[in-house]
Amino acid sequence: MHPDVGRRRVIIEGIQPAIDAGRFPIKRTIGEQVVVEADIFTDGHDLLSAVLCYRWTRDPVCTEVAMAPLGNDRWQGRFSVSQLGRYLYSIQTWVDHFATWYEALRKRVEVEQEVQVELLIGAELIEAASQRATGADVAELQERARRLRMPLESGSLAQARLVLEDETLRRLMALYPDRRFATTSPGEFAVVVDRDKARFSTWYEMFPRSCAAVPGQHGTFKACEARLPYLARMGFDVLYLPPIHPIGQVHRKGKNNATVATPDDPGSPWAIGSAAGGHTAIHPQLGTLDDFRSLIATAQEYGIEIALDIAFQCAPDHPYVQEHPEWFRWRPDGTVQYAENPPKKYEDIYPFDFDTAHWQALWEELKRVVCFWIEQGVRILRVDNPHTKPLCFWEWLIDEIKASHPEVIFLSEAFTRPKVQYQLAKRGFTQSYTYFAWRHTKEEITRYFTELTQTDVREYFRPHLWPNTPDILTEYLQHGGRPAFLIRLVLAATLGASYGIYGPAFELCEHRPRSEGSEEYLDSEKYELRYWDLEQRHSLQEFMARVNRIRHENPALQSNQSLHFHTVDNPELLCYSKSTADRSNVVLVVVNLSPYHVHSGWVELQLDTLGLDPIQPAQMHDELSDARYIWHGARHYVELHPQVVPAHIFRLRRRIRTEQDFEYYL
Amino acid sequence: MHPDVGRRRVIIEGIQPAIDAGRFPIKRTIGEQVVVEADIFTDGHDLLSAVLCYRWTRDPVCTEVAMAPLGNDRWQGRFSVSQLGRYLYSIQTWVDHFATWYEALRKRVEVEQEVQVELLIGAELIEAASQRATGADVAELQERARRLRMPLESGSLAQARLVLEDETLRRLMALYPDRRFATTSPGEFAVVVDRDKARFSTWYEMFPRSCAAVPGQHGTFKACEARLPYLARMGFDVLYLPPIHPIGQVHRKGKNNATVATPDDPGSPWAIGSAAGGHTAIHPQLGTLDDFRSLIATAQEYGIEIALDIAFQCAPDHPYVQEHPEWFRWRPDGTVQYAENPPKKYEDIYPFDFDTAHWQALWEELKRVVCFWIEQGVRILRVDNPHTKPLCFWEWLIDEIKASHPEVIFLSEAFTRPKVQYQLAKRGFTQSYTYFAWRHTKEEITRYFTELTQTDVREYFRPHLWPNTPDILTEYLQHGGRPAFLIRLVLAATLGASYGIYGPAFELCEHRPRSEGSEEYLDSEKYELRYWDLEQRHSLQEFMARVNRIRHENPALQSNQSLHFHTVDNPELLCYSKSTADRSNVVLVVVNLSPYHVHSGWVELQLDTLGLDPIQPAQMHDELSDARYIWHGARHYVELHPQVVPAHIFRLRRRIRTEQDFEYYL
Repeated sequence: MHPDVGRRRVIIEGIQPAIDAGRFPIKRTIGEQVVVEADIFTDGHDLLSAVLCYRWTRDPVCTEVAMAPLGNDRWQGRFSVSQLGRYLYSIQTWVDHFATWYEALRKRVEVEQEVQVELLIGAELIEAASQRATGADVAELQERARRLRMPLESGSLAQARLVLEDETLRRLMALYPDRRFATTSPGEFAVVVDRDKARFSTWYEMFPRSCAAVPGQHGTFKACEARLPYLARMGFDVLYLPPIHPIGQVHRKGKNNATVATPDDPGSPWAIGSAAGGHTAIHPQLGTLDDFRSLIATAQEYGIEIALDIAFQCAPDHPYVQEHPEWFRWRPDGTVQYAENPPKKYEDIYPFDFDTAHWQALWEELKRVVCFWIEQGVRILRVDNPHTKPLCFWEWLIDEIKASHPEVIFLSEAFTRPKVQYQLAKRGFTQSYTYFAWRHTKEEITRYFTELTQTDVREYFRPHLWPNTPDILTEYLQHGGRPAFLIRLVLAATLGASYGIYGPAFELCEHRPRSEGSEEYLDSEKYELRYWDLEQRHSLQEFMARVNRIRHENPALQSNQSLHFHTVDNPELLCYSKSTADRSNVVLVVVNLSPYHVHSGWVELQLDTLGLDPIQPAQMHDELSDARYIWHGARHYVELHPQVVPAHIFRLRRRIRTEQDFEYYL
Repeated sequence: MHPDVGRRRVIIEGIQPAIDAGRFPIKRTIGEQVVVEADIFTDGHDLLSAVLCYRWTRDPVCTEVAMAPLGNDRWQGRFSVSQLGRYLYSIQTWVDHFATWYEALRKRVEVEQEVQVELLIGAELIEAASQRATGADVAELQERARRLRMPLESGSLAQARLVLEDETLRRLMALYPDRRFATTSPGEFAVVVDRDKARFSTWYEMFPRSCAAVPGQHGTFKACEARLPYLARMGFDVLYLPPIHPIGQVHRKGKNNATVATPDDPGSPWAIGSAAGGHTAIHPQLGTLDDFRSLIATAQEYGIEIALDIAFQCAPDHPYVQEHPEWFRWRPDGTVQYAENPPKKYEDIYPFDFDTAHWQALWEELKRVVCFWIEQGVRILRVDNPHTKPLCFWEWLIDEIKASHPEVIFLSEAFTRPKVQYQLAKRGFTQSYTYFAWRHTKEEITRYFTELTQTDVREYFRPHLWPNTPDILTEYLQHGGRPAFLIRLVLAATLGASYGIYGPAFELCEHRPRSEGSEEYLDSEKYELRYWDLEQRHSLQEFMARVNRIRHENPALQSNQSLHFHTVDNPELLCYSKSTADRSNVVLVVVNLSPYHVHSGWVELQLDTLGLDPIQPAQMHDELSDARYIWHGARHYVELHPQVVPAHIFRLRRRIRTEQDFEYYL
């Protein structure tokens, strides 16, 4: 055994946050804190010291901060992250013989025990520290050790009292601890630090080909530029475009997913690649690469970033199929295996065969695709169906990209089983689609968002909420009328720091399904051009602008960790709050989940969560209606009319003034 | 990157049981099962196979059992342990291309798709398996591959139906899977397998020196032998003796812990060592080593094992102090550091200095002490204050001992903070003292025993319940009279598969504290000889015999994993059940927690936990009073008189007969 083994007596356990014992990093954005806790203890009664050590991976040295005991052998320390990229943290702890001695001395002095020998023991500890000290501290410590060895005439108790009051001694001893037998946590734990938009973003998905000013025309990037003021007015800061690449001709789908297309049908943008090019080419009808770069630049002027769709799959006429047959699975009849979910077949799509022996070349090529778009100025990537590619591929790809571009955001579009969805986030995706679209009842929403925001999941999985997508028109939206859209918008925008809508279908309350029981849109833009008349009276654009302004003005809504559900005695009414860490901004939301009926009930607030005094009244400012209420205590009556406004978004303004605030009161 | 990395597509996560990600072993006794679960999943839609691999460490090869999916990507497998010592388990999983193909074929056939090409793909998979096969299976598989390549006249669908019905094919393909790109769980997870007594044991603690037949005489091992029939009648199977070594003379404590002893005071058995010897010697007044071995042998005839106290500390006149001064901490005044918890001093005890540079020699010597007693026939060790020695020491010591003596049981007597207490169990202690003595209310008991039996804790921490010890006479026992002793006995004996009492103080309801507010016994046997008149009328010996017989006759009470609390509408009534895995034995306990008043209330049974039908009545046999009740449905009235019997221990006998059971009914 190593000669130190038996003397490393301190245990470190239960480190949090730590995803799968540190196998995966946690996530933060710049300026956020990492609060680290661990069980730290040893045998016997000795006192311990512990430090949290952290560093930005590009820094060669660690910074140490003292950890403090929380009780029950739980310790805590914290640091803030200020650089993009990765941080590492670990814990070191040791038996603190001086602190043990000091505390014992204090107890002995309290009962006026004889402490002559204890002072000599203290002198030894101080002498030993002086040998670890540097500069003037050496002499300072030696002088103190010497003094402890010379009995005072007033006696050892009086001398001990002087020692206990010597703050310099404590400070110096803390500077030079004996760490020879310190215990260090196993390995270092990683933090991926992203920019703010990873945490707080407001997305708008739109088909560029449907942006033409004239019905029937194929939209272009130029036409998209004309749409930017409209999006900016509504408060969106990310414009996400479905794939912009050439669309395959072979097995192209027709309107409403017809198996056979007419010559006029534009095909699905997700059937990528044709003679015109593949994943690094642009669909000619949308414009040129210059047009695309111009769109990025103009969007930037409106505070909007362009998010690109990364769909790693090919149309049968994609150039890869000829150039790299080894990246596809070939069937015994000499054809390429198309996508399928038996018995369903998707013959317009060839998936890559990630089981190929040539997987390394395939990985490198897909990385080249991502790098190409980064070079064009794209910094946000929405990844299509990542759960149908190996999880280890994503970990590699995202790590590779973020090593040189830590500002890139990857959004995982994985509507798959929960463990796979979470795993993609663990492997590196910055944000993730959720099951939000299918969570409608109070029970469903409360349970799901408690899991997302109040468990370990929140350390690595950043939920992104979409009430609709080109693939998902929920029954709730199909049948709930305009109120259903209002309700789902408020929920998405306030439950999720990041949310997005697929427009203009959303703000125009498009609700016709392809068929009874289907969640597909009728006349879906996936298969045809659509012309949208944006200025219809029932459009939600004003409401969305207001909700998004509330999100921008209330930092509480820009993260999810503080989400707390409050009790309401009506199952159709949902109430929850979010607040900043210092409670300088507190938002309370009440939503009528029924798009059909007026509902009322009594909210039971958990006052301490809101930082509210049980006695003092407070002003609740409904930022949706601009109404102001004076609330007092925990129970409050609410009543919401879905046809008017189905929700309150209250900002806690302040306590109510009393006569004591009146100028002449004193 | 390794050429396989990108093709190892399956993920294994969340393996349970696994203590601190496998850092520590779980515990089982012979015949028990290890049920292993894990999240196992991959990208896409491919089907998986997974096996649980396990082996006894002395076996060179693993046994594999198939794991089965439980839904939501959770998989389960199980094995039983049949050998003392250690087992290891791990998981291996891979994409099962044949199963994926087979399942897809089934779906295609259902909708009558053309499957000609699919059959050729299947032929390739079968051909590949034939190359992994051995013996006659090679030809069997090759023949099947050949047949699939020859179209039937009846068409591919008919041929596919034949394949789907070919059970031999499925069996053979499962025998020769393609595991080239299998994922294996990180490392192997360990199971420590103990003998039955580690799980189920009934202890009696007794001071041999107080066993003399005549008041005032010093008891001997011989006198202990005479006490064995009394213990056996009461149903105890472990007799635990406080330290039996020579007691120090220097700073010896007097009666009731007096700082100064009179020449007649026998001193505390925990102040070990004198001129007469140390940790491998026997206190001369108790007898000889031969007497001790005889006690072990005679006890064995009564089904009783002797448990020895291991207290690694020394009296000032212990031989070690002279022979190994380097194992103690010396003070600047040339004295040895005595035990203390400032400002309290225990000058009759010198602790070892485990921080010594000579710790390796110290560890070896302490191991030698344990080995010495094992050589004398001892197989159960109750370790005194293990939490004041390094945790790494215990892990080393217990592993060393159990490597050659896996049957040895170590009981940790650590009344310390919860994380240290749990850590000692993780490091290897077979059983552990608990906070049971201080848990009295329904809320306290329910919360504590749920933590012990329904969380990960149960995998490594085997609770041992003591209502009293020579150091602990709780206020509840001081003030509750005889009913308090009955209540605490029933709780200890039925909540804990292992429990013990310190007697005869317990069965004689000794309840006088040294002083008001103290938990120490007045005239404690720790510092003086006591003579106990065992045949007093108020003795609990008959009651204890009955309770212990119930424990022996009901396997449900011999483990803790099935403990379940049922609702009662009276806070003074506690109701819980235990059952065997197959529910062939179910025990339901109701206890009146108040030693003062009659209490009644309505029990609300969770019927599925008990395997009870909501309609069928059942016979509840109270094995304490021998009364039989017929219960029906979930709600039942109970009423318990503390002065009579404060508890029911029901055994579920059977369903009640009806007319349909009557011989002539049909």
